[in-house]
Amino acid sequence: MRITRRETFNAAHRLFRPDWDDQKNLEVFGKCSNPNWHGHNYTLYVTVEGDVSPETGFVLNLKALSKIIGTFVLEKLDHKNINTEVDFMQGKLASTENLAIGIWEQIEGPIMDMNARLYCVKVVETEKNFVEYFGK
Amino acid sequence: MRITRRETFNAAHRLFRPDWDDQKNLEVFGKCSNPNWHGHNYTLYVTVEGDVSPETGFVLNLKALSKIIGTFVLEKLDHKNINTEVDFMQGKLASTENLAIGIWEQIEGPIMDMNARLYCVKVVETEKNFVEYFGK
Amino acid sequence: MRITRRETFNAAHRLFRPDWDDQKNLEVFGKCSNPNWHGHNYTLYVTVEGDVSPETGFVLNLKALSKIIGTFVLEKLDHKNINTEVDFMQGKLASTENLAIGIWEQIEGPIMDMNARLYCVKVVETEKNFVEYFGK
Amino acid sequence: MRITRRETFNAAHRLFRPDWDDQKNLEVFGKCSNPNWHGHNYTLYVTVEGDVSPETGFVLNLKALSKIIGTFVLEKLDHKNINTEVDFMQGKLASTENLAIGIWEQIEGPIMDMNARLYCVKVVETEKNFVEYFGK
Amino acid sequence: MRITRRETFNAAHRLFRPDWDDQKNLEVFGKCSNPNWHGHNYTLYVTVEGDVSPETGFVLNLKALSKIIGTFVLEKLDHKNINTEVDFMQGKLASTENLAIGIWEQIEGPIMDMNARLYCVKVVETEKNFVEYFGK
Amino acid sequence: MRITRRETFNAAHRLFRPDWDDQKNLEVFGKCSNPNWHGHNYTLYVTVEGDVSPETGFVLNLKALSKIIGTFVLEKLDHKNINTEVDFMQGKLASTENLAIGIWEQIEGPIMDMNARLYCVKVVETEKNFVEYFGK
Repeated sequence: MRITRRETFNAAHRLFRPDWDDQKNLEVFGKCSNPNWHGHNYTLYVTVEGDVSPETGFVLNLKALSKIIGTFVLEKLDHKNINTEVDFMQGKLASTENLAIGIWEQIEGPIMDMNARLYCVKVVETEKNFVEYFGK
Repeated sequence: MRITRRETFNAAHRLFRPDWDDQKNLEVFGKCSNPNWHGHNYTLYVTVEGDVSPETGFVLNLKALSKIIGTFVLEKLDHKNINTEVDFMQGKLASTENLAIGIWEQIEGPIMDMNARLYCVKVVETEKNFVEYFGK
Repeated sequence: MRITRRETFNAAHRLFRPDWDDQKNLEVFGKCSNPNWHGHNYTLYVTVEGDVSPETGFVLNLKALSKIIGTFVLEKLDHKNINTEVDFMQGKLASTENLAIGIWEQIEGPIMDMNARLYCVKVVETEKNFVEYFGK
Repeated sequence: MRITRRETFNAAHRLFRPDWDDQKNLEVFGKCSNPNWHGHNYTLYVTVEGDVSPETGFVLNLKALSKIIGTFVLEKLDHKNINTEVDFMQGKLASTENLAIGIWEQIEGPIMDMNARLYCVKVVETEKNFVEYFGK
Repeated sequence: MRITRRETFNAAHRLFRPDWDDQKNLEVFGKCSNPNWHGHNYTLYVTVEGDVSPETGFVLNLKALSKIIGTFVLEKLDHKNINTEVDFMQGKLASTENLAIGIWEQIEGPIMDMNARLYCVKVVETEKNFVEYFGK
Repeated sequence: MRITRRETFNAAHRLFRPDWDDQKNLEVFGKCSNPNWHGHNYTLYVTVEGDVSPETGFVLNLKALSKIIGTFVLEKLDHKNINTEVDFMQGKLASTENLAIGIWEQIEGPIMDMNARLYCVKVVETEKNFVEYFGK
């Protein structure tokens, strides 16, 4: 059984490599490399896998899951600049893929502490693209 | 190849255990334990897996699948009280997880009779959470 | 300029008149008259009209509007039984139309106190129907 | 008859007044005043009013309307920083209200040149709020 | 008070004038003039305006409205070719604008017979464009 | 890691077998066998699986993926008649299942040429049904 929680946040970011010049960044990352930033309303789906507890009928309590996501993800990302302000994204390219991996690493442990298993982190960047990360 | 049918129903329910007092139910289930009921517009996705028939180009005829869901699920759940009126939920906690399992057990046989294999029952309770059940 | 805030709540209700018997209620209200209740995820859109403040660039502060809706509407309706638990719906038929009027009467005054004008209360009951109330 | 075109863009912005200190900006604009920017996927609905041409069956050719929005709005806003890079937003608070007014002023003339009348500019900032501007 | 019913249908169509050659049709109507047809999932919103009946709490019974739309619109349009099979579109350009007018003329009378007033017919052709017709 | 691109197209089609008479086609395919065609707004989700490149932070460049889908799928399908105009659907039943297989075969090679692996082609035909194809 899998259960999924949907959360939203918005943030600014920029795709670029500091070791490339503006021209090279523009070629590879297009408009997303704009030095003055742009941003998105991100939608996050966190899917957890486990057995249904006979005591509660739940895989896990969604309020607890929501609190984990709030503490370890949303407080760090919502209304922030992903490149400059988010500790777990420092030194990484601010792509949606890396964001999904970073979010996974933030919440995998706390979810394990609840005796559940993180199955998938899905990050929707725009209505035209999203990524799904299932761990290593 | 997988094919999915989407259906909707709405129902009242309440999360609580009769062997717990109101205080304990409130602690575990929060507002969802309200003794006077609350309700949802549920969205149901039934996914069936199989080969494409060379005769029809279909995995299975969606009209037949829709009829199975109508007879075995929607007629029993739509505009009903899940706790008190739905035969296949009697004696169970009315969680979304248990609802997905109950729906799976209702339709697995009839779908098998159509030479197809039920792959997933997904139940969306609110825009913030859903569950997916893939069978035992 | 109009600005709209979207909120959600879920609740149980039943359409029936106590002065009609079950048969008459069933004829007029159909499945919605089920004596054991059913429920919905309601979506609420509150639209306020006003001039843009040169000081803030806002018609009104959405956080304040959200707080008004939370206090006067959501705390009373969310996870409740509209027929039996919601003070401003007592003695009324629990139709979406009457719900929209009731919500309007709850928030018109507090919004006026913020020097803005309530323009529309829209209540979406299912993906197939919604109502809009613009005041008397 | 009204016809509406939907377009999307994403951008970074920040709500703040340079004549207020950070504390005052935080009090009024909350997280939206973050000095390091945040951003959104904006959805834009442009509604035009007019008679149906007996020659084409159209109020106006949507391809021409889409081109106007592309040239006068999207090229200036998409993947940009609203506060620092968008000419028609210079010296204004970067609120959704002011953005709608700015967009209106950009396209009202070109639409009039097509013998149609701009009726409404709707800007959706997040799934919880949007504004509609109908001109002076 | 306004109440809206949402319905869906899908149909094939083609934008062209028989008195223009293919080249002229292509210039004005673009890909929509393809002689071999194309098609859409249309979404229809019918909005009716009226007072709330003290007897039922309804502006009008949605089941009756749905039946009117089914009989006078969906049975004629769903899974049809708008240009060649729909009686009320004969001799007209199959634009979304003309479709909205045609639907209005089909249902205005029957809705009036229910003592309600048709307020708006909205037809969504794609996720990028829709029209709204409010009558003459 | 999986990354998904969403695209849309609209097309006309008809479900029927030339070796069956109209009556037999109607029995099996229902309204979808209408000889005068009907159509849909199709939504296409192409999911690609791969490792995240340390150089770009991407599984693959979405602009390149979008170009592949544009060239090998959308140019052939958008605003077309699936039965009569689409080369890769000739001689096949125009079901959503066969469409997904046809699209897979169109893009699997070009995606492999980008050192990525096509994981899933999902085709949404209406808001009530979709198919997912994962290759042989």
